[in-house]
Amino acid sequence: MVKSTLLSLLLLACAQTVRSEDLHRLSDYIRPLVGTKGEGNTYPGPSAPFGMVQLSPDTDKELWDTASGYEYSDPTIFGFSLTHLSGTGIPDLGDFLFVPQIGKPKLISGSKGKPGSGYLASYSHDEEVASAGYYQVRLRDSGVKVELTAGERAGMMRMTFPASDQATVLIDLQHVLSGKKWKVVWSHLRVEDNSTVTGYHLVNGWAKERPLYFAARFSRPFDKAQIFSDGKPVIYDTYRFRSSNEAAGTELKFLATYATKEQEPILIKTAVSAISAANALKNLDGTLKDWNFDGLRERTLRRWDDELARIKIEGTEREKETFYTSMYHTMLAPNLYEDATGEYLGFDHNIHRAKGFTNYTVFSLWDTYRATHPLFALIEARRDADMINSMLAHFDQSVEHMLPVWSLQANETWCMVGYHAVPVIADAIAKDVKGFDVGRAYEAAKTTALNPHYDSVATYARLGWVPFDKENESVSKTLEYAYDDYTIAQTARRLGKNDDASYFEKRAGSYKNLFDPSIGLMRGKDSAGHWHSPFNPHSYDEKAGVNDFTEGTSWQYSWYVPQDVAGLISLMGGKEAFTKKLDSLFTFREAEASQGVSDIQGRIGEYWHGNEPSHHVIYLYSYAGQPWKSAERLREVVTKFYGNNPDSLSGNDDCGQMSAWYIFTCLGFYPVCPASDYYVIGAPQLPKAVMHLSNGKDFTVTAEEISEKNKYVQSVTLNDKPLDQPFLRFTDLTKGGNLTFKMGSKPSAWGTHPEIPGAP
Amino acid sequence: MVKSTLLSLLLLACAQTVRSEDLHRLSDYIRPLVGTKGEGNTYPGPSAPFGMVQLSPDTDKELWDTASGYEYSDPTIFGFSLTHLSGTGIPDLGDFLFVPQIGKPKLISGSKGKPGSGYLASYSHDEEVASAGYYQVRLRDSGVKVELTAGERAGMMRMTFPASDQATVLIDLQHVLSGKKWKVVWSHLRVEDNSTVTGYHLVNGWAKERPLYFAARFSRPFDKAQIFSDGKPVIYDTYRFRSSNEAAGTELKFLATYATKEQEPILIKTAVSAISAANALKNLDGTLKDWNFDGLRERTLRRWDDELARIKIEGTEREKETFYTSMYHTMLAPNLYEDATGEYLGFDHNIHRAKGFTNYTVFSLWDTYRATHPLFALIEARRDADMINSMLAHFDQSVEHMLPVWSLQANETWCMVGYHAVPVIADAIAKDVKGFDVGRAYEAAKTTALNPHYDSVATYARLGWVPFDKENESVSKTLEYAYDDYTIAQTARRLGKNDDASYFEKRAGSYKNLFDPSIGLMRGKDSAGHWHSPFNPHSYDEKAGVNDFTEGTSWQYSWYVPQDVAGLISLMGGKEAFTKKLDSLFTFREAEASQGVSDIQGRIGEYWHGNEPSHHVIYLYSYAGQPWKSAERLREVVTKFYGNNPDSLSGNDDCGQMSAWYIFTCLGFYPVCPASDYYVIGAPQLPKAVMHLSNGKDFTVTAEEISEKNKYVQSVTLNDKPLDQPFLRFTDLTKGGNLTFKMGSKPSAWGTHPEIPGAP
Repeated sequence: MVKSTLLSLLLLACAQTVRSEDLHRLSDYIRPLVGTKGEGNTYPGPSAPFGMVQLSPDTDKELWDTASGYEYSDPTIFGFSLTHLSGTGIPDLGDFLFVPQIGKPKLISGSKGKPGSGYLASYSHDEEVASAGYYQVRLRDSGVKVELTAGERAGMMRMTFPASDQATVLIDLQHVLSGKKWKVVWSHLRVEDNSTVTGYHLVNGWAKERPLYFAARFSRPFDKAQIFSDGKPVIYDTYRFRSSNEAAGTELKFLATYATKEQEPILIKTAVSAISAANALKNLDGTLKDWNFDGLRERTLRRWDDELARIKIEGTEREKETFYTSMYHTMLAPNLYEDATGEYLGFDHNIHRAKGFTNYTVFSLWDTYRATHPLFALIEARRDADMINSMLAHFDQSVEHMLPVWSLQANETWCMVGYHAVPVIADAIAKDVKGFDVGRAYEAAKTTALNPHYDSVATYARLGWVPFDKENESVSKTLEYAYDDYTIAQTARRLGKNDDASYFEKRAGSYKNLFDPSIGLMRGKDSAGHWHSPFNPHSYDEKAGVNDFTEGTSWQYSWYVPQDVAGLISLMGGKEAFTKKLDSLFTFREAEASQGVSDIQGRIGEYWHGNEPSHHVIYLYSYAGQPWKSAERLREVVTKFYGNNPDSLSGNDDCGQMSAWYIFTCLGFYPVCPASDYYVIGAPQLPKAVMHLSNGKDFTVTAEEISEKNKYVQSVTLNDKPLDQPFLRFTDLTKGGNLTFKMGSKPSAWGTHPEIPGAP
Repeated sequence: MVKSTLLSLLLLACAQTVRSEDLHRLSDYIRPLVGTKGEGNTYPGPSAPFGMVQLSPDTDKELWDTASGYEYSDPTIFGFSLTHLSGTGIPDLGDFLFVPQIGKPKLISGSKGKPGSGYLASYSHDEEVASAGYYQVRLRDSGVKVELTAGERAGMMRMTFPASDQATVLIDLQHVLSGKKWKVVWSHLRVEDNSTVTGYHLVNGWAKERPLYFAARFSRPFDKAQIFSDGKPVIYDTYRFRSSNEAAGTELKFLATYATKEQEPILIKTAVSAISAANALKNLDGTLKDWNFDGLRERTLRRWDDELARIKIEGTEREKETFYTSMYHTMLAPNLYEDATGEYLGFDHNIHRAKGFTNYTVFSLWDTYRATHPLFALIEARRDADMINSMLAHFDQSVEHMLPVWSLQANETWCMVGYHAVPVIADAIAKDVKGFDVGRAYEAAKTTALNPHYDSVATYARLGWVPFDKENESVSKTLEYAYDDYTIAQTARRLGKNDDASYFEKRAGSYKNLFDPSIGLMRGKDSAGHWHSPFNPHSYDEKAGVNDFTEGTSWQYSWYVPQDVAGLISLMGGKEAFTKKLDSLFTFREAEASQGVSDIQGRIGEYWHGNEPSHHVIYLYSYAGQPWKSAERLREVVTKFYGNNPDSLSGNDDCGQMSAWYIFTCLGFYPVCPASDYYVIGAPQLPKAVMHLSNGKDFTVTAEEISEKNKYVQSVTLNDKPLDQPFLRFTDLTKGGNLTFKMGSKPSAWGTHPEIPGAP
């Protein structure tokens, strides 16, 4: 009996550590390093799906090009911090850096790439492992091996030291991913007991005012615990007592010192809270009951397995790695932002209790409304509803009475333009997502779209366009408002609010006011109705604020009428003229195309896959009777700009939008117009995929005969019935069923007579 | 019926506004200006008893000599802030300054005494009224009349403007009573609606890390509301949206603008919270249901009437004003530090809920353990218990596992020396104060006294003294530890913990180790047991850290053995030598006495009534058989250093200790040794006083024939039985009864053969 129990325990231990035995689990296909080299701005460290902590190495803290803190090309690591943004274009977070050292500890970071100038350390990718829920690296000079794993609200570090009488772990509270601009304005530290430390810092970052607490429990009592303030140890100088166990200030560090044996592991449990150290401890102790590093990792792997299983695909190893890493990337954000107590810090910086929902933060909405949330509406409906509940809470807490624009840990960054929480809500309503109050959500969307302060929405409502003499990025704002308004109208119509519907439908047509027929493109117009002159439709100045377009040009933005592609085709002179113009988008030589946007790559002419305004554009061919051109360009983008390597992303992943594009595209259809009742069919990129929809139904996409050459759709059947139109109705998708493509090596006549949904 | 109701209402209204009709209410005797000129460091603005807010004008923000923010001699007022310390020697608080202006508003404060250099304004004491719960001033240049009143958790301002198209109220979040050293490290502001604003600042002050939120509701919607950050209006510049209704930063101000009619009052309700703006609003709305300024004032007056009624006295107008203002001063602190929700910010900066008690902050314990808490133990027992409960919560939240030393709004300033929460607890136990856990309190006291980090307590415990080569203020620390230890021993003995009692009794005798018989005074000793040489017992260097004594000299500190006056008398050579030495304390010419302590006045030779180490000294005559000398000096101090004028306090009131000395002295007895079972009889200063003890009993002190000349005690009876000893037992006091003095113009033989309680 004793023996067999022991055997069971051993087997259990093996099962938890010997991962190679279970090669076929989906989480094995996750390649966290994808997007870490170049512009993807992802991070390699572990996170649970939509988790609260993201433990990861930081190789940089100043460059906007390394907004996640890690750039694969960097030769040195500062240390390992607890929170990270995935794929954003602007840095923030990187809270609470943990730094193991051997010998006399350095207290300053030193300069990137200059080992010896501070505590930053050399490493080699040969001694680095990044997989789902796990990161490992050996720091070359000290020989310390660092392993990281993360659960829902807490993470664990295992630092394996060589023998040393001075093995240390420094916690640097001043470290944040600052982009040179942000700073820690205040912090405090408390040594709670002989193996526990808590702390706090208030960061004036991209998020203007972001408080965060942490807790850390060490597996071994400190031989010595020391706080440093402004580089000096906190001691009592025999005048007025000063505890060495606590400090507050702007530049604080904690140092734990140990004498270690050869290969001695020191484990550290860590967690954060926006509310208090007590809550951080509850988050920690709630997630991590024991010191079983491998057990935590395994629990997180299982969570990933479960999430990834929402879409089962067939394909090559590379395809599976690319696809499941893309799914992984869409599920790194938004992030859980609610303590184990149910409390969270609201946008009003009051403490709220999430009643009946789970609170999330990090809403990169200008990006994610396009394909990420539409994907969630299908396979993560419960979470999508809670994300909407989180946005409604933000609305209630907003002095501007607005839904979030780009919200980040109880802050509004007001990043980018539009009010794209609105299409997320409307899409969820259109896709029958349950779990939020539709009436309340509608009112919040409407109130947001009528805010008299925000940008020039009021002027837009009055004139029919945002005038460039009053407002920057006026054309992009007009086009995006018009689309957002369409989505409100969709909900209004559904709720029987016909006056509202008519009002917002009218606003949805505003795009027409900025179409200049003399050049066949969108163009800025001033308050008096005069076109912006002189005008270069390829001009883009990266210094925003001097341009009528948002991170793009007229050539790129002129396609942005997802709510009325038929109307746009008509404005552009009909299908032939439209597709001809679209062709030319892809053929501008780069030298002629807009310059100066270093972090947007993935360029084919002036089509820039590395940024969102281009994401729907290829699919427009399908609306215009030339779906084979969709197929060509989609295959080109999938092949050139996606993959399973660190440099496989061509632009910021933007909290999963770049990856969500890939997922839909692989499936053969794409939500060009979220909140509508249809998807546009492009061309599938995998032989087979089964979507396990949140409503319990399975929807299977099969691409017969697909190959590198056989990239063109020859015919399509839906549940064995021919589907001639390049549109997939949500009402069909949601029932489950089979969408079967027959692929071939040459363009076919399939889909060449489209009837655009909703067109008159 | 209707008429009579109307009449009742009118009468009620009159009762609330026509204060002069009710001349005999006790609160009328309160003179809040007492102590505002010179070193008293009190403030003139309104506060409820032990209230959470103290609305008051600030005339200074940099000088330590004006720690309360108001100095009667200053000719200008910066504005009116919400929180103030009463009588401390170090400035802090002064949170959230409200500034009314007419015409183009100034955003900077300007320099004290220089009207026109900023928003600070001239005023005249002729146009100033300060009474209990009420302050009024007319700002000379603008003509704005400002009235302030305060309730338990919220206050109200009534600003009466002249006719103006630009009448403004500025709220300056950067203003704090900074003493030049402190600063606001972060702040935020939110315009919640058209008449409500909330905000926050984090102050790095005397309290190292002090967050505070405020809420303000205006009686009239703003004509215009504007936030300024770094002196510039917060506006949207048409690039990335920025709400003008919220801001965060280091230098924030809010400006409400109105067009006003002649004599138009704008009322502002205000409250604070250490936890959140939401809680500040709850504190506000909970305390202030309506806009009835006079009603709030009346409610607060009634609270003061109730508190002051705990001791009813007979005396002259001046005596009543002095006495009830002293009672007022003892009841301005500690302060309620708990929101209407029951939550408070703990010393660990976590949010706690006060379970079964009311949480208080501002514990000036080095001062208040002497007479303030002993007074509370008699007439404010419930509050005294809750103050102890608050200190026990602090203990639980302390990483040092220590009771507070000088705690201030979730911070420990570690100000002064000793661990004087211990005698507060022991005195409450000795005085049968109910409402806290005695066992828990005892353990906290013992743990505090055994803390191995604090000052040199561990060395003191080992050697028997604090060695001056290891620690500053070593003699004062030794003497104060020894007394504190006596109080622990008292409790230990009571609880039957005899080993503990013996241990702390031994420590209580440590004072003997620092008595140098060669000079007959206390003297520093080093670790090896050598006396500090050279040695000047009159030497005092104000720069602390270079002296063996705390804010004093050997001559002043050598009397500090309250736990064993008999032992001290013996060391000093018997009663005759002792009283002779004591006589000489009062006769040093000032030129010979220690110099350099500008904020300690009230000097009679080297007796400095302006600071606490002298407070028990006069009463030592009563122990030594010369009670007539007590009577002489007490009368001298009461006459010269107390009164009803702004300059009537001779040193910092120190949260009521200076005033509590006066109260006990007037009653004729004083707690020289809190935690003992007796008081020392000096000489009463009033013809009659009735103490309504918290146990429900009345204790009446009568001084027959008392007059300016008849200052000497001739005889005493307790409940009609002669009392020959100059000691009043607590066991007698607590039963209630009559203590009757017969006074005369000459020293008598009464009390000249004292048997010191507890002496062998």
